[in-house]
Amino acid sequence: MTRGAFRPRLLAPGPVEVPPAVLEALARPVEHHRSPAFVATFARARRRLADVMAVPGDDVLIVTGSGTAGFEAALATAVPRGGTVLALVGGKFGARWAAMAEALGHPVVRVSAPPGGDFDIAVVAERLRATADLAAVTVVHSETSTGVLHDVEAVAAVVRRERPEALVIVDAVTSLAAAELRPREWGLDAVVSGSQKGVMTPPGLAFVWLSERAWAPAVRPAAYYLDLRRERPQQARGQTAYTPAVSLVTGLDVALGMLLEEGPDAVRRRRAALNEALLAAGVALGMSRFAARPSPAVAALAVPAGVSAPDVVRAARARGATLAGGQDELAPTLLRPSLLGYADRYDAVAAAQLLEDALRDVVPATPVGVAVPAALRALDAMA
Amino acid sequence: MTRGAFRPRLLAPGPVEVPPAVLEALARPVEHHRSPAFVATFARARRRLADVMAVPGDDVLIVTGSGTAGFEAALATAVPRGGTVLALVGGKFGARWAAMAEALGHPVVRVSAPPGGDFDIAVVAERLRATADLAAVTVVHSETSTGVLHDVEAVAAVVRRERPEALVIVDAVTSLAAAELRPREWGLDAVVSGSQKGVMTPPGLAFVWLSERAWAPAVRPAAYYLDLRRERPQQARGQTAYTPAVSLVTGLDVALGMLLEEGPDAVRRRRAALNEALLAAGVALGMSRFAARPSPAVAALAVPAGVSAPDVVRAARARGATLAGGQDELAPTLLRPSLLGYADRYDAVAAAQLLEDALRDVVPATPVGVAVPAALRALDAMA
Repeated sequence: MTRGAFRPRLLAPGPVEVPPAVLEALARPVEHHRSPAFVATFARARRRLADVMAVPGDDVLIVTGSGTAGFEAALATAVPRGGTVLALVGGKFGARWAAMAEALGHPVVRVSAPPGGDFDIAVVAERLRATADLAAVTVVHSETSTGVLHDVEAVAAVVRRERPEALVIVDAVTSLAAAELRPREWGLDAVVSGSQKGVMTPPGLAFVWLSERAWAPAVRPAAYYLDLRRERPQQARGQTAYTPAVSLVTGLDVALGMLLEEGPDAVRRRRAALNEALLAAGVALGMSRFAARPSPAVAALAVPAGVSAPDVVRAARARGATLAGGQDELAPTLLRPSLLGYADRYDAVAAAQLLEDALRDVVPATPVGVAVPAALRALDAMA
Repeated sequence: MTRGAFRPRLLAPGPVEVPPAVLEALARPVEHHRSPAFVATFARARRRLADVMAVPGDDVLIVTGSGTAGFEAALATAVPRGGTVLALVGGKFGARWAAMAEALGHPVVRVSAPPGGDFDIAVVAERLRATADLAAVTVVHSETSTGVLHDVEAVAAVVRRERPEALVIVDAVTSLAAAELRPREWGLDAVVSGSQKGVMTPPGLAFVWLSERAWAPAVRPAAYYLDLRRERPQQARGQTAYTPAVSLVTGLDVALGMLLEEGPDAVRRRRAALNEALLAAGVALGMSRFAARPSPAVAALAVPAGVSAPDVVRAARARGATLAGGQDELAPTLLRPSLLGYADRYDAVAAAQLLEDALRDVVPATPVGVAVPAALRALDAMA
């Protein structure tokens, strides 16, 4: 209890609440990364990760670094130097990958989505046809800044139809283990995620899957640590090219075991229901759904006119909770509660009440007792 | 107890034994990286790190990644694109930085040291004078593969004299909090270290200090995650550009507090004595010191003729210990025990006995009861 009588709560789309069994694993004595015990843990974590990423049996590489490091590893390893990148920009993370591709020396063409909206596939098709030397398309699956689940299946289909030679590189940082993603069936070439989101482990690890053609020989990138061709042969034999964050890998292995025991489909259904409960609670409180196609990983809610979202965030903090607000130009109006981590029906009930209480702290006329019933109706409708 | 009646022990130069208080910190509920509580922890860890790195008050950046990521961040941020790098190669890590500089597009000139020896400063001076477009010199302080503590002060002095415009970039991954390093007084431009060595935290964090001239405006590198000019303004206000490994930072803060409480000078004296004890135990067992100028971070010992070092490593493993062997061409003959982590006089006694027992498992004629007395004599001589 660090703040009054409230315990700390994470209501943010990462870092998320981590199961006690994972925290316990982090506190185990550190194993040497070349020891047989850790090599076995690392290999099992990679197998489990491939199952959770719906690419069973494939090489998924674990990189010590943030999701940003993972995305750069995918770009650096798979996209030929100087090739043009078509970047689909629906929010802050889509914009980051466009800026990153420019930093790596690629000409970048941007296609925008309206705030809270998805991409217009006809516009994407037109840009695909018009872009010379196209090497890759980047797209965010769950755009955490807007709460939109972008239709990656449709994007991949239009790329396959219009420019089959272009690689499709997907940011699945917050969508992994929350929204369905079928890398093989949809014809993706790179999927990147991270530890501190749906796989409910602390931050510090990134995951990268590449299609076989993305691994095809190319000029080596002007990179070393994030050049995955240095990592792949090592990880194939349970090693890593550089010392990995062994404690985080040990925790990840435990968390993945829990997710696989519950079953990936059940995990996704649970998270979709919890997220609907958050959205329903917000709507009952006079907020509005910001995302046309909401991600199950984060509930983007626009506060009622005249209310300051940062004030609600501060009120939630006084009640122990880290409630995510909007980023950059969306900061004044957006709230982004999330139960992406270790959370169940009763955490949704608690979060709904906390949202109501925090809003009432800011707007005393907020109705009493509306958020929890709305959340429960949403949960029951999705049961 | 995972193997018979022995408990696991790390006798390797990283990852090292981590104090229970640090492991406990890792198991705390994850804090959001933008929360006031974590921002305060991060800022304190950076201040403490600057003290431990002997650059009090300076900006030391914490990067989520291995020490290799940290070294690449230093090269990418500080060395102008295309400038020539003079790489001092005394072993595996020196060779890695030369290969990395080449991967980043720099022409590289190598100066070698003989196995187990230091660099010939006259040769370094000659190469400094002969190298056109020299931008930077890379040097490893404690070369973990050979156990040599390279004379970075002398290297920096000759660079300052012969080519004052060149940056001096130092790998202090295993030397931090073990050997004295004075970045300002010696005129260094970059110092890189990592969490899993002398600061006795699990792996996953790298630390980078740059001199003011290394930060001077330049063409941005063809890098994003490891371009520290993106990180510096964020970290100056307690934030990070990308989600950091919050659990590891929390543990690091605890570990740094312990090191500062003991006092950096006392920590270095303790580690030098423990390392001398390991070397003395090995010599008493018929092994020989491999390093002409031994690093206090690792005891490089060549096994007696006819003995297989990997056999001794396996015998130690059967007794619960991860005893580091030699790398690459030094694997058949070298052992590299280390007590760089959380270790005291009695850990040195235990390690000496374990070394003796493991050698006797391989060479039954190994004398009885010689290692511990030799270790104790070394400890007492350095008290």
